[in-house]
Amino acid sequence: MKAYREMDREELLALEKELTGQYEEAKQKGLKLDMSRGKPAPAQLDMTMPMMDIFNSSFDMTDEAGVDVRNYGCLEGIIGARRLLGEMLGVDPQHVIVFGTASLNVMYDTVSRSVTHGVMGSTPWCRLDKVKFLCPAPGYDRHFSITEHFGIEMITIPMHEDGPDMDLVEEYVKDPAVKGIWCVPMYTNPLGITYSGEVCRRMANLSPAAEDFRIYWDNAYCVHHLYEDRQDTLPEMLSLCREAGKEDMVLEFASTSKISFAGAGISCIAASLGNLKWVKDSMTYQIISHDKINQLRHVLYFKDLDGIKAHMRKHADILRPKFELVLETLERELGGLGIGTWTKPLGGYFISFNSMDGCAKAIVAKCKEAGVTLTGAGATYPYGKDPHDSNIRIAPSYPNLEELKITAELFVLCVKLVSVEKLLETAKM
Amino acid sequence: MKAYREMDREELLALEKELTGQYEEAKQKGLKLDMSRGKPAPAQLDMTMPMMDIFNSSFDMTDEAGVDVRNYGCLEGIIGARRLLGEMLGVDPQHVIVFGTASLNVMYDTVSRSVTHGVMGSTPWCRLDKVKFLCPAPGYDRHFSITEHFGIEMITIPMHEDGPDMDLVEEYVKDPAVKGIWCVPMYTNPLGITYSGEVCRRMANLSPAAEDFRIYWDNAYCVHHLYEDRQDTLPEMLSLCREAGKEDMVLEFASTSKISFAGAGISCIAASLGNLKWVKDSMTYQIISHDKINQLRHVLYFKDLDGIKAHMRKHADILRPKFELVLETLERELGGLGIGTWTKPLGGYFISFNSMDGCAKAIVAKCKEAGVTLTGAGATYPYGKDPHDSNIRIAPSYPNLEELKITAELFVLCVKLVSVEKLLETAKM
Repeated sequence: MKAYREMDREELLALEKELTGQYEEAKQKGLKLDMSRGKPAPAQLDMTMPMMDIFNSSFDMTDEAGVDVRNYGCLEGIIGARRLLGEMLGVDPQHVIVFGTASLNVMYDTVSRSVTHGVMGSTPWCRLDKVKFLCPAPGYDRHFSITEHFGIEMITIPMHEDGPDMDLVEEYVKDPAVKGIWCVPMYTNPLGITYSGEVCRRMANLSPAAEDFRIYWDNAYCVHHLYEDRQDTLPEMLSLCREAGKEDMVLEFASTSKISFAGAGISCIAASLGNLKWVKDSMTYQIISHDKINQLRHVLYFKDLDGIKAHMRKHADILRPKFELVLETLERELGGLGIGTWTKPLGGYFISFNSMDGCAKAIVAKCKEAGVTLTGAGATYPYGKDPHDSNIRIAPSYPNLEELKITAELFVLCVKLVSVEKLLETAKM
Repeated sequence: MKAYREMDREELLALEKELTGQYEEAKQKGLKLDMSRGKPAPAQLDMTMPMMDIFNSSFDMTDEAGVDVRNYGCLEGIIGARRLLGEMLGVDPQHVIVFGTASLNVMYDTVSRSVTHGVMGSTPWCRLDKVKFLCPAPGYDRHFSITEHFGIEMITIPMHEDGPDMDLVEEYVKDPAVKGIWCVPMYTNPLGITYSGEVCRRMANLSPAAEDFRIYWDNAYCVHHLYEDRQDTLPEMLSLCREAGKEDMVLEFASTSKISFAGAGISCIAASLGNLKWVKDSMTYQIISHDKINQLRHVLYFKDLDGIKAHMRKHADILRPKFELVLETLERELGGLGIGTWTKPLGGYFISFNSMDGCAKAIVAKCKEAGVTLTGAGATYPYGKDPHDSNIRIAPSYPNLEELKITAELFVLCVKLVSVEKLLETAKM
């Protein structure tokens, strides 16, 4: 294939005409597909349905520690759930508190608690003139939304192939107003890359000016591999920080949202005992206990990490063909054209696509016009502002293969068309 | 029986000796009973166990609106759950958002949101020098703990037989720093009384100086009657406020914690569309959706208000004998002695006992010493400070009848002993 940039004006005009024709045809199909979020497909949710058989009306609802899971109490979650999620994260159960359905809620509450009450005795952020967070980007839009909602200034940190630009991170944490960094360290949203051991070690050895600086380590995809033979690995961060003498610096979050049920899983925080005490100091006023019936349901269904791993292999069997279909389409249709690059993740929920500068918004709009909703262009950056207007998050999990084929083909068509238009426009100027 | 106050010193000394002997005997029994919280008994939780049969692995997990309850989405809760809890409160489903397991969490989050973001566009409370809440007392300790945790100044409002002292409430809301009032309007915690229609009407017609003043209407015991033929009634507060042209002034909270499972129910807020928009504005950042599987489980199990009422009659059958046993013991042992008064509620979870002034702490301590834990004396007042050291909350729900008999007898013994000691001490001075 000839790279678009090497085409002369006439070639581009001819191509534009051809692509416009194809696009008009695609629009006629009246598509209505949503690829905006990393939503599990119904087939994935079906897999977990045997969990609905765990309990029945004559079941003894007492856990191994003698806790009646139906009643009040047990603020930290039942021991079985703390052990299960601890094992998943490689952390001792005593360092784990288990919550309700959403780790997002736990992260929001943690930021909120820092704003109203401060972190482990430090000044509440609401009394400070300025609070800043470091935001490796492209990253998870809902992280950025939380900090934006609380009026926290966000500083974009570029992502490299091995994680955030640590030179910059080390520099920025010298500012006492910098109170945290958002990280999805494994199969990161949306790049799909995993932080290298070196990046993790540098992260654990940060020397922030703020004593209440925390690494928000959102390990959302810690067991979400696509392949058996090729898997990323990640060091356990709480231990790394402990070794560095900075055990209080990291707050780790995880959930079973993309393991059991997206809307009805269990979530957790893993952290030092000091941090957990701080969390519990507020939780005591907030809730008597989270849903321990659902916690026990998860414990009895998965049993242990091996149970989770076996379950995740079935998820991979559903997700892998979808990732491969998208990657094959991108390679076949865009390879060599010089109008886009993309990541090839070994796990997680996303493929990250970079168009030519200034094209992402137009591509997403064109897809939308033809009936396919993608994540909003820019969403992967703080304040929704991608400085290059280039990054698009592709979420292949929800549609079935047939829908995904149509979607992927529409996507590459839109990329081509917008790129041609961009080149023609640029040439004019 | 002769009232203690009419006894002379010798009679009191003889009585003290006799009671001390009985108390020492009771201590030998090595009791270990907890009556500190309004916890449902295992027998009550057993009643709801058929709810565990609702789903199985081949169940179609789609609700009436076509929502896959297993997946992300549906921030406000599924329509069936909004309708069910709306019906329970007498409120249209569009005015209801359904949350996770605990209404306490919803109330905490509402206060927290007001602190960080303000109420419907008003100044965030964290930017104000002073924020105050009105606290009808005796009241629910966990309410007072939330406001105390956020550094909100609490003003005690005396409770009468028909609800809070409305003259005082009307006076205090003229202060723009007064931002809210905690109410448990029906079978109130701990008095067991229900606000009269007149009190509710005056409440709905308040003219607070603060535009962001809200009535926290915690309708925790709205269907928790003990008797079929004698039941308190409560006007629907959202309509009352609407009629008064003050629809935004009330936030109503409820849950199924004491209907289905204390630790695994569903909860809600009911309010004006303006308030709900404000709540959702923050929720959008906090969570993608609460546990809709558990919501659907509740909908399919209870079906409608009649289903809930039928279920609550079974609760009453378990709770009524417990209330009656305690009331009979109080009447038999303390009637006519002039050393205590108590409420005789028609519903809810508590009996409120008032000792002679200055005796409550000593009574609770004496019970504790003999192995029975009661709610801490003073807990029913802001800052845990009962000005008369007189109120004790009795929570008869959790122990079985046999345990309750022992507990009630120990309690009256401690009341007698402490009262005699108090009278002797007072006489000396």
